[in-house]
Amino acid sequence: MRIAIASDHAAFALKAELAEALAEWGHDVVDLGPFSDARVDYPDFGYTLARAIATGDVERGVALCGSGIGISIAVNRDAACRAALVSDPYSATLAREHNDANVIAMGARLIGVDQAKACLEAFLTATFAGGRHEGRVAKLSHPTL
Amino acid sequence: MRIAIASDHAAFALKAELAEALAEWGHDVVDLGPFSDARVDYPDFGYTLARAIATGDVERGVALCGSGIGISIAVNRDAACRAALVSDPYSATLAREHNDANVIAMGARLIGVDQAKACLEAFLTATFAGGRHEGRVAKLSHPTL
Repeated sequence: MRIAIASDHAAFALKAELAEALAEWGHDVVDLGPFSDARVDYPDFGYTLARAIATGDVERGVALCGSGIGISIAVNRDAACRAALVSDPYSATLAREHNDANVIAMGARLIGVDQAKACLEAFLTATFAGGRHEGRVAKLSHPTL
Repeated sequence: MRIAIASDHAAFALKAELAEALAEWGHDVVDLGPFSDARVDYPDFGYTLARAIATGDVERGVALCGSGIGISIAVNRDAACRAALVSDPYSATLAREHNDANVIAMGARLIGVDQAKACLEAFLTATFAGGRHEGRVAKLSHPTL
């Protein structure tokens, strides 16, 4: 799969670890930055990732910041994105099965590297269950606020 | 504080527990439903909660579904909302301190009642740190996708 990854400075090291794991698993990884650990604003990188999903350039996204909260909010501003903030693999599985999530968000200050890799693996291997979840996901894609 | 709470059927029981806790703590609680555990679609209740925040009817929101993922995505479709999906009190504190989150989201299938109450208490007592976080939060409120 073609997968984009983006973070802020707080998650710069975790981004490198997960990008390496994705490449090892055979995926085509698009690193959207940042490219150093200098201070940046997570919304900028979240919006860049959202655009990559919305345009169809990538099939999945990985969004990282200190807590995962800020960048998950940014990515979910775009109705093309369904970003799931998770801290355990079962949540990552549910995100795919129930919500057809196309972006996984995690917090580098909160999760260990191995747990983050386990979440990422669960997210990439689980499949959308469809059925009763279809209509709910459609409502997320065409919000009627 | 005037606080709205909304869920889906999977989190109907947790909603009742947390609404009771909020009332005990002296808050003015606005229950936006659902009012039974019959199957509903989480985006509908997420959008209703988002509207209550956007209009200024309530100061804070509590958004609940099975995993918390679906309803947090729905709430974050509205640029007036900063919904933080959490499963531990430290994340709930960071959500206020760094992201000025106005909505807390939790997953009823994933979190115990006491842990959920601890998250809620942390969310309601922590304060926004401002400073370097101001500009980032502003970018979430006026997305330039």
